[in-house]
Amino acid sequence: MIEHLTSAKNPRVLAWRSLKERKGRLAHESFLAEGDRMAAEALASGFPVEALLLRSDRFQELSGSTADSASSLPQEEKTDQRIRLTELPPELPVFVLPDHVFASLSDTRTPQGVAAVVSLRPRPLRGSRFIALDGVQDPGNVGTILRTADAAGLDGVLLSPECADVFSPKVLRATMGSIFRVSLDFPEDLAARLISLREEGFSVLSSQLDGEPFYARSGLSEKWVLVIGNEGNGVSPAVRAAATHRLRLPMRGGAESLNAAIAAGIMMYELMKE
Amino acid sequence: MIEHLTSAKNPRVLAWRSLKERKGRLAHESFLAEGDRMAAEALASGFPVEALLLRSDRFQELSGSTADSASSLPQEEKTDQRIRLTELPPELPVFVLPDHVFASLSDTRTPQGVAAVVSLRPRPLRGSRFIALDGVQDPGNVGTILRTADAAGLDGVLLSPECADVFSPKVLRATMGSIFRVSLDFPEDLAARLISLREEGFSVLSSQLDGEPFYARSGLSEKWVLVIGNEGNGVSPAVRAAATHRLRLPMRGGAESLNAAIAAGIMMYELMKE
Repeated sequence: MIEHLTSAKNPRVLAWRSLKERKGRLAHESFLAEGDRMAAEALASGFPVEALLLRSDRFQELSGSTADSASSLPQEEKTDQRIRLTELPPELPVFVLPDHVFASLSDTRTPQGVAAVVSLRPRPLRGSRFIALDGVQDPGNVGTILRTADAAGLDGVLLSPECADVFSPKVLRATMGSIFRVSLDFPEDLAARLISLREEGFSVLSSQLDGEPFYARSGLSEKWVLVIGNEGNGVSPAVRAAATHRLRLPMRGGAESLNAAIAAGIMMYELMKE
Repeated sequence: MIEHLTSAKNPRVLAWRSLKERKGRLAHESFLAEGDRMAAEALASGFPVEALLLRSDRFQELSGSTADSASSLPQEEKTDQRIRLTELPPELPVFVLPDHVFASLSDTRTPQGVAAVVSLRPRPLRGSRFIALDGVQDPGNVGTILRTADAAGLDGVLLSPECADVFSPKVLRATMGSIFRVSLDFPEDLAARLISLREEGFSVLSSQLDGEPFYARSGLSEKWVLVIGNEGNGVSPAVRAAATHRLRLPMRGGAESLNAAIAAGIMMYELMKE
């Protein structure tokens, strides 16, 4: 199913372009995974992929002699970071777009010319070790925390409505593909959700500068959720009240605080050792 | 010593403007610490401050009724994040600049109108627990690692010539003032420097994806230096060869690697527990 679209005003093109903004992503319940690597990860993930978009030159390259085209990429990237047209699901729609049309959809200055349109439907949250983000607003922090949660082996991430949108291009880039591997949940009311997890036997760990020493913590359940707060204001009062543990990392030098993603990384790796 | 400068072509102004670029910083052996907080931290640090620059409106505010002016800042910022003109060292030159001249020096879109011209001379490196950056190129990563090294209580940071310049505006912002609290060293040849530290009894820990499990490390000296490599290529071959330990953090999910600043943060906090 390969279709060539040439107009930047084609209704499909307009819909894809709207995915750059949160409003458009919510309206179409999908987001754009840009670049060879992200598109390949999307196709390999459990997320439903609605369409694959290729710039004309990339379509010619990928459908042409693979020996020629592959030689332009470094050796280690040949195997897993390229889309193979012959291996795509036969029912997947592929759209080929001229340069200016593809550029109009892309969030990057030098687009790779490959993008997947992916359904927003997040994976259901299951497991016993979570991180919750309470108003973390920097897209780089949110993306990096997702990437680190994946590497540390956590079971999923909860995000309050005040967080940076995980499906925005900046967050997606910072996840380095981990968006497709971690389970996500978007509770309307994070404090209420944490209270019900507590009632299920979870320890709720609030990371806060006025907390108790993190390395001296005790009485943790095997099931836990670590909460990281907003970069400026920390964890919100309702979430602090819902916590079973309020913890801080030691600050030995003159620094007043750690970057939110760094604190999250140190705590996640430490908690996963147990 | 208060002097009003009005021309954007004043030789001093031209010199300060050149501090935005590495070349200018090296030529004048100084850098610009911008904003109320950074300037106050510079004045409180051991770094020689060559001059204080104030935009006209900030000069009027800071030399006028303190009761009025302080009320515009949140309570917790009143005490330690403001310059007090009456408490400046009497020999410190203060220059007052009109809006357009100050804006021409500034690296930010909405300058706070306060900046300190600080001597580049780094603090000499002393101690037994260091982090070394081997070609870390992202300014946010370099600044965040300095901030985390300060919080974790390390004794200093070594930077190879390929690293992002620590005195660039982006790195300075990410350090959140820690630039004034951590000792720095800039070896011409990082591998040679690590070899001489090894000869002094230091363990040299290279963080690399093909290393041994980090949490199973053994035989570490009380004196150590942790090496973090370039974001794309990791630790360089010469530095790998100089290491006494080659270590990797566990990757449990599908993530291939961690962000360089996250890996540095996890390892620094873990090593400082001992």
